[in-house]
Amino acid sequence: MNTAHQWRTREGLALLTDFYELTMMAGYLKEHRAESRVCFEYFFRYLPPHAGFGVAAGLGPFLDYLENLKFHDDDLEYLRSLRIFDAAFLDHLRAFKSACTVRAVPEGTLVFPNEPVVQIEGPIFEAQLLETALLNMLNFQTLIATKAARVCLAADGDPVMEFGLRRAHGPDGGLSGSRAAYIGGCSSTSNVLAGKIYGIPVAGTHAHSWVMSFANELDAFRAFARNYPERCVLLVDTYDTVESGIPNAIKVFEEMRANGSNARPAIRLDSGDLARLSKIAHRMMREAGFEDPLIVGSNDLDEDLIADLKRQGAKINSWGVGTHLITASDSPSLSGVYKLVALEDEQVWQPRIKISSNLSKGTNPGRKQLVRYYDPNDTPLGDVLYDMDETVAQSGDIQGRNAAQPHRAERLRNTNRAELLLETVFASGARTEPQLPIRDIRARYLAQRAMLPDEYKRLRNPEIYRVMLSKKIGDLKDELLKNPDSQ
Amino acid sequence: MNTAHQWRTREGLALLTDFYELTMMAGYLKEHRAESRVCFEYFFRYLPPHAGFGVAAGLGPFLDYLENLKFHDDDLEYLRSLRIFDAAFLDHLRAFKSACTVRAVPEGTLVFPNEPVVQIEGPIFEAQLLETALLNMLNFQTLIATKAARVCLAADGDPVMEFGLRRAHGPDGGLSGSRAAYIGGCSSTSNVLAGKIYGIPVAGTHAHSWVMSFANELDAFRAFARNYPERCVLLVDTYDTVESGIPNAIKVFEEMRANGSNARPAIRLDSGDLARLSKIAHRMMREAGFEDPLIVGSNDLDEDLIADLKRQGAKINSWGVGTHLITASDSPSLSGVYKLVALEDEQVWQPRIKISSNLSKGTNPGRKQLVRYYDPNDTPLGDVLYDMDETVAQSGDIQGRNAAQPHRAERLRNTNRAELLLETVFASGARTEPQLPIRDIRARYLAQRAMLPDEYKRLRNPEIYRVMLSKKIGDLKDELLKNPDSQ
Repeated sequence: MNTAHQWRTREGLALLTDFYELTMMAGYLKEHRAESRVCFEYFFRYLPPHAGFGVAAGLGPFLDYLENLKFHDDDLEYLRSLRIFDAAFLDHLRAFKSACTVRAVPEGTLVFPNEPVVQIEGPIFEAQLLETALLNMLNFQTLIATKAARVCLAADGDPVMEFGLRRAHGPDGGLSGSRAAYIGGCSSTSNVLAGKIYGIPVAGTHAHSWVMSFANELDAFRAFARNYPERCVLLVDTYDTVESGIPNAIKVFEEMRANGSNARPAIRLDSGDLARLSKIAHRMMREAGFEDPLIVGSNDLDEDLIADLKRQGAKINSWGVGTHLITASDSPSLSGVYKLVALEDEQVWQPRIKISSNLSKGTNPGRKQLVRYYDPNDTPLGDVLYDMDETVAQSGDIQGRNAAQPHRAERLRNTNRAELLLETVFASGARTEPQLPIRDIRARYLAQRAMLPDEYKRLRNPEIYRVMLSKKIGDLKDELLKNPDSQ
Repeated sequence: MNTAHQWRTREGLALLTDFYELTMMAGYLKEHRAESRVCFEYFFRYLPPHAGFGVAAGLGPFLDYLENLKFHDDDLEYLRSLRIFDAAFLDHLRAFKSACTVRAVPEGTLVFPNEPVVQIEGPIFEAQLLETALLNMLNFQTLIATKAARVCLAADGDPVMEFGLRRAHGPDGGLSGSRAAYIGGCSSTSNVLAGKIYGIPVAGTHAHSWVMSFANELDAFRAFARNYPERCVLLVDTYDTVESGIPNAIKVFEEMRANGSNARPAIRLDSGDLARLSKIAHRMMREAGFEDPLIVGSNDLDEDLIADLKRQGAKINSWGVGTHLITASDSPSLSGVYKLVALEDEQVWQPRIKISSNLSKGTNPGRKQLVRYYDPNDTPLGDVLYDMDETVAQSGDIQGRNAAQPHRAERLRNTNRAELLLETVFASGARTEPQLPIRDIRARYLAQRAMLPDEYKRLRNPEIYRVMLSKKIGDLKDELLKNPDSQ
């Protein structure tokens, strides 16, 4: 029996949707429009603060949900109890089978504002139902993968352990968050369930309570070393880090060495000034003959603090990051949206646009392709949104409009290679390919990170990656903005 | 079949724990200390920014988890695969049955910094295991209930609908978040699954996509009114709010009125300047003879913006609040901790304290009682932490120390009634009382809110509620701080 089955498979989530999706679906059914074919796209308008790129994540769990999407008797009974929906609608839900096609950017891919990351084509009845679950899963995991990417950039090659479960937003905030953090470059998690379900390496040693439960700190350290001679990381700040914790730890490492152990001496600092204390610890351990100690730092870390500690020469070479990573604390939501971009009328796709009083809340019309262009060194130059029926230039100079400011003409020069980023990942009720192991998703991200120039990787004021509309989409947008009623 | 069973019961979460809990547990077992009896307390050191009080939430789901806590074969198989734990430890997990006693402040109770909100007494093996899950569930739900309380205070009696699912941290971030938001005073949620599982009222009407999927806005509004004559809230900002949305909505309300409908005309504004647009909409609707329209406002609202819109006389009388509520965006974690406060030695409880380089990360020693004192008008005056074995004064002047600054003597004058806040909620592997329906938890909070003076309810710089240590705990703390090795 797989006890964590439902947490992994996302079964039982048919009602994980906003109520208005159901009222609209029932309305479409009554209006005999439930089968009208539409296309919705998921995109975000802004990256998290200071981020030069985003890391796509959350698609895998969304497809799990979609493969298992089914209305059960108790779901329908609950809806009936609301006394709003008629029997025809509930019967329609009972018979529901996914008929949509999903095209998406693979998880672990670098993504940027205004790009269609997921595209759902199918009956409006279903496309509307999926909105909330898709936003819920993609927004959160993309947010955390992007945050993890920043933290790992700051750690500059040192391993980053994700320690956030106790401050995560509920059990799945931890589980989905650990998954996304690993995709974004973390090396391990403290979350054992995430280790089991997703195969993420797990890490951790002991807490203050271990030390406090023994007669004194030295007894506690000796007991831990006895039990874990190969992974003995001692937490040195329960009482007094410099006067007691570090000296007691060194005493234990000396005892281990005297007994023939080759284990690397390792401590964790979880309070106080990490720069100063890590330097003191490093010096004391070297004076005791331990040339290359592992010094883990934790306690309210984020990418800015890690970068600053490194700037001050902190002797920390492994980072435990919890709260700020698992909640993306400086901006804990990604404002990705899911917008109708086209509907089919007598087998012809008609582009649609939303205008709105806030200009920035408008959309780009039509079903799109997303193309990434590379220079002759295989460095990414920029991305272009094309209409689905448009021919994609494969190389050379590419002209278009700035996607965020469509009145501005832009050009990518001397492109050498075009990569189509949207792939069909779901059709006829099932995935088109098996789910990739998470280490492969992480490897995809790390490979793309390696190809990205440094100017997009700064923690502050990074260069803005170029995202363009093709001329055709730009012209169509102009036209629809001039004549909203013509659409 | 109950399809959302596992999302509700928290089954399958035995491994929802930090890896170091397991390494410590295995260590305790090897050291023949697994059965040592200890007491841990959960408390937070700071309220969220600007909050004058917290609202306890998350205990119910934690007790669900605890009642269903069991290591299954696949959990043990996974742990074995890590090649760290021996067979004796895995056998011990296989045989695990909860032997702890949980005392806790009931959900919906007002809570303050440094107060033991949950107290767990039992074998250290189990008490250590529970740490992460308890922190995960209590921290998040208390955070959101407290945020919801602030949003509802700003709305000043208007209903607040929680609309956050699409920006919540994964499926359970939405589900647990909706539950907490309702406890904190929200009137409904858009999250249908939360409606089903917890019995929270659900709300919502239609999205921009409904309007965009019709030939024009008027057709879309007419179709919606036809289908939902009794709950017809029209979203008026898909194209142009003032030129098109509001006039088209009024046209539909006039048609409904002409057909004999008595439904209250209702619109939703989701972009643009909500103060200005709501006044324009209100005027236009009154001019059309609709005296008391419902005007729902949504779009990136939080307590500060709601208070400011009200200050400017916005004609909004119902609020949809999503992102900022469900993520507590200005400070998306509550830093509650779970600390060892005592351990039993030859049947005598020995108090324990953690000191740490950061003074603020210290703890208060010993197993505690938490007592709230009221004045003769039944207004709460302050809370006092007593040692478990101390006699609790029932009325009169109460002397003690400030819990945040224990060197400061403090006094509650003329108390009339003492309320013991910690109740035994779990023992012998089961709840001691059935789970309260969520509407009763919400009612408890609202009753306590009504008793709390206004000075604690300000959105900025509220009065600081008094939390004291009894003289005995204060003296014990002094003593342990002077002689950390004596404990």
